[in-house]
Amino acid sequence: MKFLYKGTTGLLEKNIFLAANSLREYLDLLQQTTNTNDYKIYEGSIVLPSDTKNIAEVLKKSEELRNPKLRYFVDIGIGGSNLGTKAIYDALFGFFDVIEPARMPKMLFADTSNPTHLQKLSAFLKNTIKHKDEVVVNIISKSGSTTETIANAEVVLAALSGVNEIASRVVLTTDTGSQLDAYAAKKGYSALHLPKLVGGRYSVFSTVGLLPLATIGVDIKKLTQGAVAARAMSLDTNVNSNPAILSASTLYLLGKTGKTINDNFFFHGELESLGKWYRQLMGESIGKEGRGITPTVSIGSTDLHSVAQLYYGGPKDKITTFIRADKVKKDINVPQEMIFEGLVSDISGQPLSHIMHAIEQGVAISYKNENMPYTEIILTDISEYSLGEFMQFKMIEMMFLGKLLDINTFDQPHVELYKTEMKKILAQ
Amino acid sequence: MKFLYKGTTGLLEKNIFLAANSLREYLDLLQQTTNTNDYKIYEGSIVLPSDTKNIAEVLKKSEELRNPKLRYFVDIGIGGSNLGTKAIYDALFGFFDVIEPARMPKMLFADTSNPTHLQKLSAFLKNTIKHKDEVVVNIISKSGSTTETIANAEVVLAALSGVNEIASRVVLTTDTGSQLDAYAAKKGYSALHLPKLVGGRYSVFSTVGLLPLATIGVDIKKLTQGAVAARAMSLDTNVNSNPAILSASTLYLLGKTGKTINDNFFFHGELESLGKWYRQLMGESIGKEGRGITPTVSIGSTDLHSVAQLYYGGPKDKITTFIRADKVKKDINVPQEMIFEGLVSDISGQPLSHIMHAIEQGVAISYKNENMPYTEIILTDISEYSLGEFMQFKMIEMMFLGKLLDINTFDQPHVELYKTEMKKILAQ
Repeated sequence: MKFLYKGTTGLLEKNIFLAANSLREYLDLLQQTTNTNDYKIYEGSIVLPSDTKNIAEVLKKSEELRNPKLRYFVDIGIGGSNLGTKAIYDALFGFFDVIEPARMPKMLFADTSNPTHLQKLSAFLKNTIKHKDEVVVNIISKSGSTTETIANAEVVLAALSGVNEIASRVVLTTDTGSQLDAYAAKKGYSALHLPKLVGGRYSVFSTVGLLPLATIGVDIKKLTQGAVAARAMSLDTNVNSNPAILSASTLYLLGKTGKTINDNFFFHGELESLGKWYRQLMGESIGKEGRGITPTVSIGSTDLHSVAQLYYGGPKDKITTFIRADKVKKDINVPQEMIFEGLVSDISGQPLSHIMHAIEQGVAISYKNENMPYTEIILTDISEYSLGEFMQFKMIEMMFLGKLLDINTFDQPHVELYKTEMKKILAQ
Repeated sequence: MKFLYKGTTGLLEKNIFLAANSLREYLDLLQQTTNTNDYKIYEGSIVLPSDTKNIAEVLKKSEELRNPKLRYFVDIGIGGSNLGTKAIYDALFGFFDVIEPARMPKMLFADTSNPTHLQKLSAFLKNTIKHKDEVVVNIISKSGSTTETIANAEVVLAALSGVNEIASRVVLTTDTGSQLDAYAAKKGYSALHLPKLVGGRYSVFSTVGLLPLATIGVDIKKLTQGAVAARAMSLDTNVNSNPAILSASTLYLLGKTGKTINDNFFFHGELESLGKWYRQLMGESIGKEGRGITPTVSIGSTDLHSVAQLYYGGPKDKITTFIRADKVKKDINVPQEMIFEGLVSDISGQPLSHIMHAIEQGVAISYKNENMPYTEIILTDISEYSLGEFMQFKMIEMMFLGKLLDINTFDQPHVELYKTEMKKILAQ
């Protein structure tokens, strides 16, 4: 993974380094946290990728659940309980599911309580699952009492109630001692836990993300190795080459100049869910006290044909982060002998990756020409390792950004505002 | 469809009516356009839903293409050439495709030239399609020379080149006389056209959207009937009850008070692509001359667990449009006897639609309590008719909003900025 920012943000180098240097004390704290290897502060999530005991336990459990018959892993969780898992699944598999109908196992997500979706999911599971080994149901709620998650779990388990010994295929992922946790023993389900102080949006490398991913065949060792590598870069005491500190500093300084939107412009559609994961990370972490930056997700080249006009011609209120991978998983060439000869120059015989690269470069050059500030994150490829790198880098970046803004990066007090009203209405 | 704004925008009624009344002259023009029934001005797109000749032609063509063997309709187009089609397909079918693997025909979209996606799509089509009747390929490019569309078309047609008489299953949708159009006769493909002055983002009710949708079984008569009904409401001379004028006026006035983001908050995940369609409509139509409002899409309740903290606690820079349907297609109850008893109050035995409604109401009340301005669009249901209503309403709203801002709503001059650079790189 590379992070590039030089000459494209419009910021003075000395201001970036001033901001970066102010983070030294916090950097020390993060380093100590990594070394002590425990979860006693909110920043403890950075320990997860090297928590070999936890990874081994997850792998053991996933080996119990895996078998050649497994077709569907039903992931029931919302927000921090599923966004990280979905980011990685969609990057590797989910985006292609419709054109790979035979590829199994597939992950099915039930986050919100969409009535039509849950009715269809219920009917599908009822008609499709004949043997327990064909399915796993993972119910993920840190608190153990998320309304949508419990409602969806009830619907899904009712749909599967005719399957023999289904209890052996149900896993609860929750805080130790939550009310949900107590049901594991009562009902014969398995239970997995995560550290108390690891919040949902920092939990992808805990049991929350690792168990579903490992069970459907994602290499979680590579994923966490990537995270460990990014952690090392992001805790580099040489702040001038520390990507998390530099990225946080540019976001902070550009935010101060009135840029209110951070557009995350991914040049691979399969990374859209990764963008949504980051959207929560930034939105919940620093959106408080009347401050914050609104994260958006754009997809290249799709959105060049949609919102690019606004980006170029509209208010200059955006900090753009371009994200692309150097190597794509598969590639294909435009035929040498084209049917539609003469319509588009210079593409015959070219790999699509070459065309996409020209578009990416064209966009970057035009942003520079228009003085539209941007940074670039270049992943080596779209693999477990690279996704682990990106996510760990971004979680540490967000801690630094919160520190620069002097904001508590780990709470989300305002979400109670609607929940309180919702509960009153449900109780009527 | 209902549009609600009273008491939730923080605006004075008299200011809304002042803005609304300033649109009377333009309203006259739109009405005349509808009556003359031609396409001589850019606003001509509003004629499309009542263009019975065009609809009949599309239906005739779609009947030729439809047959019981049809499995995949490959829609190759980007931006205005596919966003409307995808919005409707995903609302009705696409969101559920993975859990309805047997439902056919399915639509497969190839918008950008994603190398991995196109390689997999190519392999899938090569392996799956044995007979021409199983597939339709629709290549949609108004100009006829969109880089990604031509590249993808070449790849897809190469994958299908072994299928007998495949030319009879290829449809080109483009401007009359474009260079692409000329290939229809040369290669034995069909060609469909759209009016010259109807731009991509206003073209969903032209051949661009209607042919793909009709061919996979969407009722385009109901779709266009909904649009005709919304057009009547949106051209109501009683501006105080004209939803398009009132919506445009509130967006305009809130925009002037410094709200820079229009968050479109859909309470049905299957409407996310509809949000993306609107994102282009607003982004390209009014994002110019340094002005514009950045459209975003949020999904309830998913994003309440993601960016709601930012919306409540962050900068108050958003105008929210809540969109929900009164009636959902399917529903399912939480079982009366819950497994996880005692974790969440008041949901046992309740339909999920009831729980979602409580969440929606909880959010609306809390927005009001926090003085966060919003309007509401309440669809009767998620059907062809309601989708037609929403889209026509929004397209006319955007024309009014452009007029209020004194901006040319129909061009997109800045997208050439990156295209010019891209072409230089491709030519190297």
